[in-house]
Amino acid sequence: MTEDRYKKGLEVFKRHLGDKADAYIERINKIYPKFAKINVEFPFGDLYSDTTILDDKTRELATVAALTVQGFSIPQLEVHVEMAINSGATKEEVLEIITQMLAYCGFPAATNALLAAGRVFESLEK
Amino acid sequence: MTEDRYKKGLEVFKRHLGDKADAYIERINKIYPKFAKINVEFPFGDLYSDTTILDDKTRELATVAALTVQGFSIPQLEVHVEMAINSGATKEEVLEIITQMLAYCGFPAATNALLAAGRVFESLEK
Amino acid sequence: MTEDRYKKGLEVFKRHLGDKADAYIERINKIYPKFAKINVEFPFGDLYSDTTILDDKTRELATVAALTVQGFSIPQLEVHVEMAINSGATKEEVLEIITQMLAYCGFPAATNALLAAGRVFESLEK
Amino acid sequence: MTEDRYKKGLEVFKRHLGDKADAYIERINKIYPKFAKINVEFPFGDLYSDTTILDDKTRELATVAALTVQGFSIPQLEVHVEMAINSGATKEEVLEIITQMLAYCGFPAATNALLAAGRVFESLEK
Amino acid sequence: MTEDRYKKGLEVFKRHLGDKADAYIERINKIYPKFAKINVEFPFGDLYSDTTILDDKTRELATVAALTVQGFSIPQLEVHVEMAINSGATKEEVLEIITQMLAYCGFPAATNALLAAGRVFESLEK
Amino acid sequence: MTEDRYKKGLEVFKRHLGDKADAYIERINKIYPKFAKINVEFPFGDLYSDTTILDDKTRELATVAALTVQGFSIPQLEVHVEMAINSGATKEEVLEIITQMLAYCGFPAATNALLAAGRVFESLEK
Repeated sequence: MTEDRYKKGLEVFKRHLGDKADAYIERINKIYPKFAKINVEFPFGDLYSDTTILDDKTRELATVAALTVQGFSIPQLEVHVEMAINSGATKEEVLEIITQMLAYCGFPAATNALLAAGRVFESLEK
Repeated sequence: MTEDRYKKGLEVFKRHLGDKADAYIERINKIYPKFAKINVEFPFGDLYSDTTILDDKTRELATVAALTVQGFSIPQLEVHVEMAINSGATKEEVLEIITQMLAYCGFPAATNALLAAGRVFESLEK
Repeated sequence: MTEDRYKKGLEVFKRHLGDKADAYIERINKIYPKFAKINVEFPFGDLYSDTTILDDKTRELATVAALTVQGFSIPQLEVHVEMAINSGATKEEVLEIITQMLAYCGFPAATNALLAAGRVFESLEK
Repeated sequence: MTEDRYKKGLEVFKRHLGDKADAYIERINKIYPKFAKINVEFPFGDLYSDTTILDDKTRELATVAALTVQGFSIPQLEVHVEMAINSGATKEEVLEIITQMLAYCGFPAATNALLAAGRVFESLEK
Repeated sequence: MTEDRYKKGLEVFKRHLGDKADAYIERINKIYPKFAKINVEFPFGDLYSDTTILDDKTRELATVAALTVQGFSIPQLEVHVEMAINSGATKEEVLEIITQMLAYCGFPAATNALLAAGRVFESLEK
Repeated sequence: MTEDRYKKGLEVFKRHLGDKADAYIERINKIYPKFAKINVEFPFGDLYSDTTILDDKTRELATVAALTVQGFSIPQLEVHVEMAINSGATKEEVLEIITQMLAYCGFPAATNALLAAGRVFESLEK
């Protein structure tokens, strides 16, 4: 059963991030396997797995909004910008959500998020 | 032209919050009219007005996510939960977005957001 | 197996909070059962259950420190102050940890945490 | 010498807040005297005491800005709005600083700060 | 009229940052022109333009205080340290404001702000 | 007497960080000696010096928890991970505290803290 949570979690993680999911988890696994296991099972196995209430794209745009406002989560924001694109969001939708966040976090956090999105778009084009 | 920004802003604000928008702005206007004017013109006139890139519901769910993670914006979160419902989101979609935020802000912020959403739903049922 | 996670989680939650754990979860369960279930299974079933690496008291003092610094988690801080006392911490240890946090969050957050701890101590004396 | 730090701190605290400083500190002193002692000695004895580099009014306006952006420090923000007025700032200067913060924290934090300032102004008029 | 807001905003931005303002905005403009336009019009056209209530130096010191406390806005803090100097603040005033913030954000945020200010001062001396 | 606070502070700082304490303070001292002096006297002279209520290891684990949740204090977190190890904490205890924080700050902050701890452990092994 626990194995099922891990399996489902990894499947959902790869649906959002593709094969890069393996490297993401492996980097954490080398430091503390317990954390890596929870990272697969909890957000992806429990929180993102349901697609009957909300689709992947809406979920990812909401996460981009949240991480923009948080200000210090730039590496994770970059991952979720890529996941948003993988889930069918356009670049313009991502940029528009970050711009909307100006009303909730002001310019420093939103600017750093916009520059991060710019870096992701550039790397995806290569 | 500036008048146009205010007029468009108020229109968009009322599209999201209905007639409660007037009381919201009036409370701020009594303290500092300049702030109230910006509150209409900037978020609603500039940021939420465009519906060609993102629809109102997606925008509001993203804002619910952002304010959940922020932790201290409970009064504004309550307003945006109501705006999300007014924009066509279901209660379950709102609750699902707040639950998803557990991965980005942990339990204290997400729990306080969930209880706030519960209060809004109760007041809307009356 | 999932049932086991819930059962273990509830047991650990009650070890820390006593019978008040039921009311805590029920209030959330009435709004969104999925969130309530995760609230039992994840922090208490997965994170706090192990006592071989860290004992309950050290874990609770660390959480008091974290919620003090967070600033907006006052209701949850109150719960964890009570849990710290239930886990064998003295009032003075709790107050000392909050005071230490002055170095990391300054006076506003630490003062609000201290006043919250004062309220909890008063209610426990009744 | 330590006594001197406390004495100087209390003097500076009263220069900013008047006789209300005693009640502020006493509330904390009842819970943890060590915290109350530090609260007098450190911010007021060490940080605010110098008036050769920055005057009281500039210091208080900067603190109003900082607590506005922080979002969760509403009780302390109210104290510093009063201290700003006591240091010679006008209401309009306080409201203007809070409005300026829209660029750094967005509307939720700035709105809650503006409403707090409004409450302080009302109570001072009585 | 909208053109006037942009023109006034750019003028105020350059009054604070000199010719570096162009490069700042261009970097954002390449990613999302809408964000760049708002960045000129809103903070500089609407918020910083008035000098009858508060002078540029007081505004910039308040922003340095706010960004110090925010913790994650280091690139923007660096820009505003430079703007504070350009508006007539001395290095010592900037360092004193950052030091004062120890009371509101503790050592990690204030230390990172101090080191950032040190870097700006060094680059300005070249 | 003030000299005693500095002397005691430096002694406690070195008890936690060894000879690296000198370089830490010198880097700040070059920018603003007043800040460096407070950095020795206040946290280490006043807050960490008492070992009758809480031992060094418990204090350091609590600080690791707090800085994990804070999200933007990575350089200071690295210092306190090293201090925790110096105070007798095992690597596993540090990793377990960071993992526990998932419940209070979610994955971005906790992941960045875990990676920081990994870097510290690696550098200590050399």
